[in-house]
Amino acid sequence: MSSIPPASIGIPLDEVDTPSLVLDLDALERNLARMTEAVKGSGVRLRPHAKSHKCAEIARAQIAAGAVGVCSQKVSEAEALVAGGVADVLITNEIVGAKKTARLARLAREAKVAVLADDAGNVAELDAAARSENVRLDVFIEIDVGARRCGIEPGVPALGLAKRIAACRNLRLAGLHAYHGSAQHVRGAAERRAQIAAAAEKAQATKALIEKAGIPCETITGAGTGTFMLESASRVWNEIQPGSYVFMDADYNRNAWEEDWPRFEQSLFVLASVMSVPARDRAVLDAGLKASSVDSGMPLVHERPGVEYAKASDEHGVLKISEGATAPRLGEKILLVPGHCDPTVNLYDRFVCVRKGKVEALWAVTARGALW
Amino acid sequence: MSSIPPASIGIPLDEVDTPSLVLDLDALERNLARMTEAVKGSGVRLRPHAKSHKCAEIARAQIAAGAVGVCSQKVSEAEALVAGGVADVLITNEIVGAKKTARLARLAREAKVAVLADDAGNVAELDAAARSENVRLDVFIEIDVGARRCGIEPGVPALGLAKRIAACRNLRLAGLHAYHGSAQHVRGAAERRAQIAAAAEKAQATKALIEKAGIPCETITGAGTGTFMLESASRVWNEIQPGSYVFMDADYNRNAWEEDWPRFEQSLFVLASVMSVPARDRAVLDAGLKASSVDSGMPLVHERPGVEYAKASDEHGVLKISEGATAPRLGEKILLVPGHCDPTVNLYDRFVCVRKGKVEALWAVTARGALW
Repeated sequence: MSSIPPASIGIPLDEVDTPSLVLDLDALERNLARMTEAVKGSGVRLRPHAKSHKCAEIARAQIAAGAVGVCSQKVSEAEALVAGGVADVLITNEIVGAKKTARLARLAREAKVAVLADDAGNVAELDAAARSENVRLDVFIEIDVGARRCGIEPGVPALGLAKRIAACRNLRLAGLHAYHGSAQHVRGAAERRAQIAAAAEKAQATKALIEKAGIPCETITGAGTGTFMLESASRVWNEIQPGSYVFMDADYNRNAWEEDWPRFEQSLFVLASVMSVPARDRAVLDAGLKASSVDSGMPLVHERPGVEYAKASDEHGVLKISEGATAPRLGEKILLVPGHCDPTVNLYDRFVCVRKGKVEALWAVTARGALW
Repeated sequence: MSSIPPASIGIPLDEVDTPSLVLDLDALERNLARMTEAVKGSGVRLRPHAKSHKCAEIARAQIAAGAVGVCSQKVSEAEALVAGGVADVLITNEIVGAKKTARLARLAREAKVAVLADDAGNVAELDAAARSENVRLDVFIEIDVGARRCGIEPGVPALGLAKRIAACRNLRLAGLHAYHGSAQHVRGAAERRAQIAAAAEKAQATKALIEKAGIPCETITGAGTGTFMLESASRVWNEIQPGSYVFMDADYNRNAWEEDWPRFEQSLFVLASVMSVPARDRAVLDAGLKASSVDSGMPLVHERPGVEYAKASDEHGVLKISEGATAPRLGEKILLVPGHCDPTVNLYDRFVCVRKGKVEALWAVTARGALW
């Protein structure tokens, strides 16, 4: 890696080298405050997902704003966050294999750590790892509430797994993980409501079944930025895990937001430079696939009407310029709104944090590339 | 980042933690030898593109196998490669802006560095930067030979730019960059041949025009893994820049390869683990969008008939298991062939280099994240 960073403290945004990951601190702070406000008085705990930002600095700001801890997706991500000063991490994922479960149990000696399970064999493996390290691990049963990804079937199969966990000396059943991932990106409000209502019913019934068997099942956790207002109001979930609200992205901005939901602002951008102006209707940016993830569509050009990011290759973004639009100049810097914030953040080593047009800080993407 | 690496030297592949970027060294070495063999006696110089591997170790191996140097796409990528012991880098891109051109000129004090230009203003900026550092920069005119990305029009506009470059005291016109990027991924041989033939005509005519004006224009450089056999045989190009041949990927493997072209092997894989087996027809891997780039399609499951990588989310890959196929076991490790090698490599800090099923080395992805 080049040792020359793309920015230094105090310079104006326009002097930041490109492509860079730019974070508008005022917008970030307003998003944090809006989320605190949204859950206040609901009786629901906030545990934001750190997979979106992978940044210990932001995780600590979330906790300072009232979150009980954060979520992560990987053991190495959790390790990086704990090393960065985060004391409470729920890994919202199944952790399988002797090496990984051993690291998980070791991490539980340093911080409050919880994990998901959807398989009896894995429960035995987790128990053995926890016993080796002489710790007690909190385990959430992941039930499939409609996303058809991981998760055991709700109801009787989940009850069977709850009994297994309850029988393990070094595990504690902490509750249910009921996350409907695909519902987050459903555009229409009615369909989203229907999906979360169906998920609520499954989670509620499963919790009742487990408690009837005499096994405590305190927490139902789940929800993301696209649906958390529904889970918060449901009286089923008592913990929510939104992640993207800190940044937002082009994909989430395409959702129809309900009237009384908080409006999160775009705080995350990719700053790019125009590197070629070969034709009147075309310009080329220095930011392609390695600068902004395109899995949920192309990045959007910020506040440049008539200029569209049409095509990405590895290191290039081709802009289409409509007739009558102001053509970008060679060397001009342009802000892009990433299509999907999480995998875009994962491409960078640092956030260039900007306030009122000036660089205020460089924050490490603490868990960048922490995959395993 | 987690400081615990996913593998250590000497362990078997099956003990490597996941997801990991696995490089089969035997296959890599055969690919290097096949390329050396393919250009031997053609009079064409080999200058492989390092944007695919971003690895100083592989760049040095390519040079040891007969390459004259490598290509890179970014100044920071070139800086990382030069710091890693590479002495000759052509940046196959326009470098715009005072900060970047200053770094480029500084780098030219340490190594042989060349760059592209397609704009007169940028030529003046390059000349000023080179003068400041008291170096002479080699500049190639990028002409648009059909890809409609960067590049000045061939013929008279290119001649105009050549005259500007020739008039600059600290620049030298090294030749033409005539790269047809989109032709690399044209599936059919006939259409590929037609596109490269058209590009050859434009490059040839432009070179003739410039030389007629008394300006030397020695090198015509271009070509990628999908077409380099055509450029090599053309008697127009005298330097080629293939990159992906060292690894290959699912997208390149979909091209119809011509009879007498070298067969490159898949040497690059993502090793993933089965982390959930929630249904008979579905299993979930721990490798999603942050482990394998999906811009050119999903990764392919290696040598597991009836098992298909159907869907990627940030940290998950959903496998669809056909009836009658052997279902993956929980914890089982599975090799994936990335859809697109370049942006996949850029997600990792290291290659886990394997020979005959054992880890032989860990190589740094030297220029990972070197975007600017």
